[in-house]
Amino acid sequence: MAFLVDHSTNMTATPKATRDRLVEAGLYLFWLHGYAATGIAEILSRAKANAGSFYHFFKTKEELLLAVLELYVQSLEPVVVQPVLGQIADPIERVFGILDFYRRNLLATGCTYGCPIGRLALEIPEEQFRVHKRLADNFDGWTAAVEKCLADARERFPESTNLKTLSKFVLTVMEGGVMQSRAHRDVAPFDASVEHLREYFRLLLSQQEQKSGGARVVEPK
Amino acid sequence: MAFLVDHSTNMTATPKATRDRLVEAGLYLFWLHGYAATGIAEILSRAKANAGSFYHFFKTKEELLLAVLELYVQSLEPVVVQPVLGQIADPIERVFGILDFYRRNLLATGCTYGCPIGRLALEIPEEQFRVHKRLADNFDGWTAAVEKCLADARERFPESTNLKTLSKFVLTVMEGGVMQSRAHRDVAPFDASVEHLREYFRLLLSQQEQKSGGARVVEPK
Repeated sequence: MAFLVDHSTNMTATPKATRDRLVEAGLYLFWLHGYAATGIAEILSRAKANAGSFYHFFKTKEELLLAVLELYVQSLEPVVVQPVLGQIADPIERVFGILDFYRRNLLATGCTYGCPIGRLALEIPEEQFRVHKRLADNFDGWTAAVEKCLADARERFPESTNLKTLSKFVLTVMEGGVMQSRAHRDVAPFDASVEHLREYFRLLLSQQEQKSGGARVVEPK
Repeated sequence: MAFLVDHSTNMTATPKATRDRLVEAGLYLFWLHGYAATGIAEILSRAKANAGSFYHFFKTKEELLLAVLELYVQSLEPVVVQPVLGQIADPIERVFGILDFYRRNLLATGCTYGCPIGRLALEIPEEQFRVHKRLADNFDGWTAAVEKCLADARERFPESTNLKTLSKFVLTVMEGGVMQSRAHRDVAPFDASVEHLREYFRLLLSQQEQKSGGARVVEPK
């Protein structure tokens, strides 16, 4: 499944720079097999690079992983967020549009999709602080994008609703839903989780609607 | 961290049967390092067993993993559920008591704890169908225990609330919260997720309370 890079176009007329090929090979293989199960030899073979090139750019496999996580951070906006913002105007529906990106990944892979960041967050040993820091950065980038959508609908939520922690809750729903759907090889647990998140949002919004006398606050034109 | 077995008591006067030692070693090492990164040699060393014993009981490392997952299924009730039922009477608070088990695991490990089942659900290659089946069985056992608590409070939820999918949502909250807390090395994302689940429950229950005229349905004594 093409997640961030289209792996079928590795052989285009303009060859990619060696470092880019190494990072893309790492991204693909760490996602497919995990970090521990991916050897340098496999990365070199996929990237069509030799060991000298690898060690020219990266001292260790961990250095390559950090570069992969940097690519994920940079790709979040163009790959995950912007397509949704371009298609959906309602800020709350945008949040569900982002969640739908993961649903489509599940459906496109027969529900074998696993979130690469989530997978690494549970796999990487606790000693690898720098990696966990970059994983947390990825989570923070994701929740910041969701929080921005929620903030655009601030007046529709009760004042007491903390939008920062709510954005983390949305990530929790995505990650927990994807995990269960992968184990069950069925999109139903993901859908069930998103449905309960929808119901939670509906209850929060209706609480606020009742408070403002049933009249939605509409900005004057 | 002792999760299911106390690893400090491997050397008690009555030695454990070899198969049990192998399963416990697998449980511990798969949890600590993951499945791919754990070699048979490491398992033998920890279990103080030889290769002949291993292959007497298990044809492959996957067979050992299946035995580990069977142990997790069997341990859910005595280790996770029963202690909560023994301490907490309110059925809804029991659900949050089960979630608190994972919060205590996070705190006891400096937030490096990862749910072993969740980790394997994202790590194990999709080809290993039998393993994913047993991972799904573990998730089903967990959500069945939560659904039983919710069913004991059936009259406090709106009729339209689907308790089966709600139990999967509770698992989603646990898994997504644990994952983020591990990456951030901070219990805050887990707490934030549980806090929003609490708010969701509060809104569902208050909706039902309003419907029944503010009077809780109380069984006659």
